[in-house]
Amino acid sequence: MRVRKKPWAAQELLDNTLVINDAPEKKGKWKEYFGNDHPIYVEIGCGKGGFLRKNAEAYPDVNFIGIEQQETVVAMAARRADEELPNLAFVWDNASNLSDLFEVGEFQRLYLNFSDPWPKKRTYKRRLTYRGFLQEYRRIMGEDAEIFFKTDNRGLFEFSLNEFCADDWKLSNISLDLHNSDYEGNIMTEYEEKFSSRGMPIYRLEARNRK
Amino acid sequence: MRVRKKPWAAQELLDNTLVINDAPEKKGKWKEYFGNDHPIYVEIGCGKGGFLRKNAEAYPDVNFIGIEQQETVVAMAARRADEELPNLAFVWDNASNLSDLFEVGEFQRLYLNFSDPWPKKRTYKRRLTYRGFLQEYRRIMGEDAEIFFKTDNRGLFEFSLNEFCADDWKLSNISLDLHNSDYEGNIMTEYEEKFSSRGMPIYRLEARNRK
Ligand SMILES: C[S@@+](CC[C@H](N)C(=O)[O-])C[C@H]1O[C@@H](n2cnc3c(N)ncnc32)[C@H](O)[C@@H]1O
Ligand SMILES: C[S@@+](CC[C@H](N)C(=O)[O-])C[C@H]1O[C@@H](n2cnc3c(N)ncnc32)[C@H](O)[C@@H]1O
Repeated sequence: MRVRKKPWAAQELLDNTLVINDAPEKKGKWKEYFGNDHPIYVEIGCGKGGFLRKNAEAYPDVNFIGIEQQETVVAMAARRADEELPNLAFVWDNASNLSDLFEVGEFQRLYLNFSDPWPKKRTYKRRLTYRGFLQEYRRIMGEDAEIFFKTDNRGLFEFSLNEFCADDWKLSNISLDLHNSDYEGNIMTEYEEKFSSRGMPIYRLEARNRK
Repeated sequence: MRVRKKPWAAQELLDNTLVINDAPEKKGKWKEYFGNDHPIYVEIGCGKGGFLRKNAEAYPDVNFIGIEQQETVVAMAARRADEELPNLAFVWDNASNLSDLFEVGEFQRLYLNFSDPWPKKRTYKRRLTYRGFLQEYRRIMGEDAEIFFKTDNRGLFEFSLNEFCADDWKLSNISLDLHNSDYEGNIMTEYEEKFSSRGMPIYRLEARNRK
């Protein structure tokens, strides 16, 4: 989804206290920023932020950071969230800069929700579950690395299963139809609400570094 | 599929040279039986045998053994096959007796095609990809164990993915829509022809023992 650039977005990023404009300066200091030792979970491509907003409300003992490459989209995410939430932050940046933002081991879980499918074979390397990305995620998260991935896109899910397996992650809770499964406590994203309301199955998996 | 017992089946099993009536006596001696050192691939629940028949014709340097628990069905499989095929055999038996039929390492690959789905939760342990079965397959095949699994049943495939991962197999070539994938050289089973002709996606994976 490309969202048309809104004129208010740049100002929202400056004004909204949930937005971290000097994120690279927080590298190695995210605990200080949040003022506690709670685990840090990151979502890449957080879109309009509904998933993180609901997570931040439900899990006050976890800190959540959303990374989103589109200026207007991250501005929307920040605007929709309650600025008083102490455990939520948004960063306007691209996944490929992850190592500029975090020290090794500084966050423990990565969420990838409804990542862009890049359906053409010659663009597979841009998929956020391409093995090059998986290796980088593992390197940055360290030995406790875990990734929670969901999508409506069968082709992307199939590709991702194979990439995770090829890169030797330990998979669990694989679901080929999340909304008709036993999985409890699911928190929906904006895309998930759209696609599941059309009756499309949602695919999900958890991947952990094999120690 | 329960097939009504046919009166001719018992006689077919006795007369057809592809049927091994004293299979436990072949334990540890399958190479002798086939008269060569070729790898041995087994299908459990081979049904009417189309998959193995076509494999035996396409791969003369592999020996194939089909195991099927229904007397009439294994008789049909043998009757449909060319009795001159030197690399094909059928055994009327149940998966749970595998260790009575094979020495450790005596076969190298197991095919599970369209295994019975046992859809009720309390019967999951009868699924041929239940982890108890997977452990037994690994024990019998030894360190080179590999399992090729395909099914039309999404619930069974999801269950199987999780069981293989929980039991720590290395997965590859996972397909969520085999007939629209890049996979080449697929050999169809009777069930596969039926379900794919109705437009249903076929799921497939390869699992190997993690050494
Ligand atoms: C299809 S949307 C899904 C949004 C949200 N996760 C949801 O489920 O509703 C994908 C989002 O990921 C963002 N995105 C894609 N690639 C990215 C990257 N490399 N780094 C940061 N964000 C990215 C896009 O801008 C878009 O907002
Ligand atoms: C749904 S049919 C599929 C047949 C064939 N593989 C195909 O794809 O056309 C499953 C077959 O597995 C056989 N079967 C099920 N459980 C078995 C077991 N524990 N041992 C041996 N055969 C079994 C059934 O009798 C049936 O013929």
